Amino acid sequence: MTDKPSRGLADVIAASTALSDIDGKAGRLFYRGYDIHDLAGKISFEECTHLLQRDRLPTRAQLDGLAAELEAGRRLGRLVEGAVDEIAAQQSPMEALRSLVSLASAEDPDKDSNSADANQRKAARLVAQQPILVARYHAARGGARPVEADPGLGIAGNFLLQITGRRPAPREIEIFDECLVLHADHTMNASTFAGRVCAATLSDMHSGVVAALGTLKGSLHGGANEQVMRTLLEILEDRAAVQKDPRVIEDAVGAAVSERLRRGEKLMGFGHRVYKTEDPRATHLRRMAEELANSTGDETYFRMSKRMEEVVFAEKGLYPNVDFYAASVYHYLGIPTDLFTPVFSVSRMAGWTAHIMEQHADNRLIRPDSEYIGERDQKWVPIDEREKE
Amino acid sequence: MTDKPSRGLADVIAASTALSDIDGKAGRLFYRGYDIHDLAGKISFEECTHLLQRDRLPTRAQLDGLAAELEAGRRLGRLVEGAVDEIAAQQSPMEALRSLVSLASAEDPDKDSNSADANQRKAARLVAQQPILVARYHAARGGARPVEADPGLGIAGNFLLQITGRRPAPREIEIFDECLVLHADHTMNASTFAGRVCAATLSDMHSGVVAALGTLKGSLHGGANEQVMRTLLEILEDRAAVQKDPRVIEDAVGAAVSERLRRGEKLMGFGHRVYKTEDPRATHLRRMAEELANSTGDETYFRMSKRMEEVVFAEKGLYPNVDFYAASVYHYLGIPTDLFTPVFSVSRMAGWTAHIMEQHADNRLIRPDSEYIGERDQKWVPIDEREKE
Repeated sequence: MTDKPSRGLADVIAASTALSDIDGKAGRLFYRGYDIHDLAGKISFEECTHLLQRDRLPTRAQLDGLAAELEAGRRLGRLVEGAVDEIAAQQSPMEALRSLVSLASAEDPDKDSNSADANQRKAARLVAQQPILVARYHAARGGARPVEADPGLGIAGNFLLQITGRRPAPREIEIFDECLVLHADHTMNASTFAGRVCAATLSDMHSGVVAALGTLKGSLHGGANEQVMRTLLEILEDRAAVQKDPRVIEDAVGAAVSERLRRGEKLMGFGHRVYKTEDPRATHLRRMAEELANSTGDETYFRMSKRMEEVVFAEKGLYPNVDFYAASVYHYLGIPTDLFTPVFSVSRMAGWTAHIMEQHADNRLIRPDSEYIGERDQKWVPIDEREKE
Repeated sequence: MTDKPSRGLADVIAASTALSDIDGKAGRLFYRGYDIHDLAGKISFEECTHLLQRDRLPTRAQLDGLAAELEAGRRLGRLVEGAVDEIAAQQSPMEALRSLVSLASAEDPDKDSNSADANQRKAARLVAQQPILVARYHAARGGARPVEADPGLGIAGNFLLQITGRRPAPREIEIFDECLVLHADHTMNASTFAGRVCAATLSDMHSGVVAALGTLKGSLHGGANEQVMRTLLEILEDRAAVQKDPRVIEDAVGAAVSERLRRGEKLMGFGHRVYKTEDPRATHLRRMAEELANSTGDETYFRMSKRMEEVVFAEKGLYPNVDFYAASVYHYLGIPTDLFTPVFSVSRMAGWTAHIMEQHADNRLIRPDSEYIGERDQKWVPIDEREKE
């Protein structure tokens, strides 16, 4: 409790959670007490979803049970199917997902209950549907339907299959699965917090997730990974002639970044409210970007990113965050730039839904105070006696 | 800044605002420095919208300018028109409004800008469209289209006209207009706060409003006015035989309320996080409920409400809040019970949009901390070695 306003609630503890924890000074992130470095590359996104939504890493039988629920939960309802083509023609990806998830509540069999069991079933369906919604939207804007999901592939593999239209290599699936695990939860980030504020009025899980989706859309949050890629592409475009010589690219990146910083522009993908050192997720994403640069034989984006990281650290002392190398990784995996933030939502859906369950399980309305800074003692006068300006 | 978690952010100052101010001890509410008692019944909802969105009570010319924008802004887009019938068939009112406003962003000419000018135009359109969306939804679920709006009536009059299908009496319009003014803003309430958390990622105004709509839906917030009416109707239904004798009703209400309190049920419409005395809006709504009870010749709901207020105060020391007498007022005005929360959204749209403009004008990401209360030092083991439970 405090008398002073805290701009942006920085350092204010807004909630208790058993889902994730950050040690910002040490650069450590934990999901339910597991260090992210112990989980990244070792568990699938489905196992991660079980850990967040159902308290523990699953046994084989528990994972099979969840997988069956996810398989059954993939089917889109009539309201979504009836609207998706028009939405794809008229709304940008995050606008569209906000609309589609709002429509999807209509046919959820548990829509009218906030009970723990109903929430758990809804949470699985929301995780199952999100990648399908992204793929369905992406295909619809090309006038098509996505290729059929393959029951033999998990969420990561099916997403790459449906978005790129080609069968992903096993190592691509592993890398993308690791990306989904790395983005799945992150304490009281803005979208999760918006979802909890919504759920704390005892509104329903879909409302909380829709609030979170609209919040993730912003360029200071989920929208940042797309901005990182656009910055890389802009720098390349300006200097298209030189892009074949690595040293020339590195000089060009250095000059472009210094110029942007001199103009006072914010470079997306750097710095974080909570981490005072390297974001542990960035460590993994840098490694994956480098591996994909090597395996695809296209080092351009990884080299540009490395150089940008060096220049920003030298000039501003800022570390890359989760969004920075995610951009190159998604690009190497063949994901269109304007679907990077939707990819974030595919993963964070696991965290959002788990936080909403946690909020409902021990609820109190989230209703802060505000500080009044406007005019005082105003006197009403009839409209025809009011002064102009 | 604090080391202790504050459950529900009670008494934590989350933002500065020049829009509204509450003196909870004295039971006073101000919009931009005007006491709500000076505004209620004296200004129209359109004037109130101008005050909140455009800094001041309008001159006649300014009001005419806003009215022209509102008139032009009423038109629904193709995406909304194409989906509203199916939505009305499959979604409840607040679910539907969440979906419809999300779809409406598609055709807003300012959708890609968060500039002050673009936000001001979007804010007017959102206020203009919200009552039309409610009316369009309500008509669609009856398989019809709403009666045409009358350009000679303002927002309050047209809403009553379109919802009830009959021309409202001038005094009914005045009363409903006053209701809209009373609900237009209320500092950092949960839905407004959700909208600001969303907008603070530099997401767009429609995303912020969609987050707010989902938040208002909850029974601890906007959903409460509908719950109040359902409680009144339940008590009446249980004792249908006695409803003609006022004294019998009063005894029945007393017994029913005491019984609910004894069972530990929360009675909606009483108590408030911020007010420690009577909510100043309740004072006006009680007066309007009494007037409508007299003018309609149906005193039942007003008498029941008065008695419920007495019993709850005697047993719990709680005062009625804005939702309590609003229920009777809306019922007397012929508004269906399941549209009470949508009516709240028609009014609060003025405040939500003004808060989002204020957030964008001096933005910082809203990203609080959390306290970790879960397991620690967990060690990953391969899936086939994990123990059951």
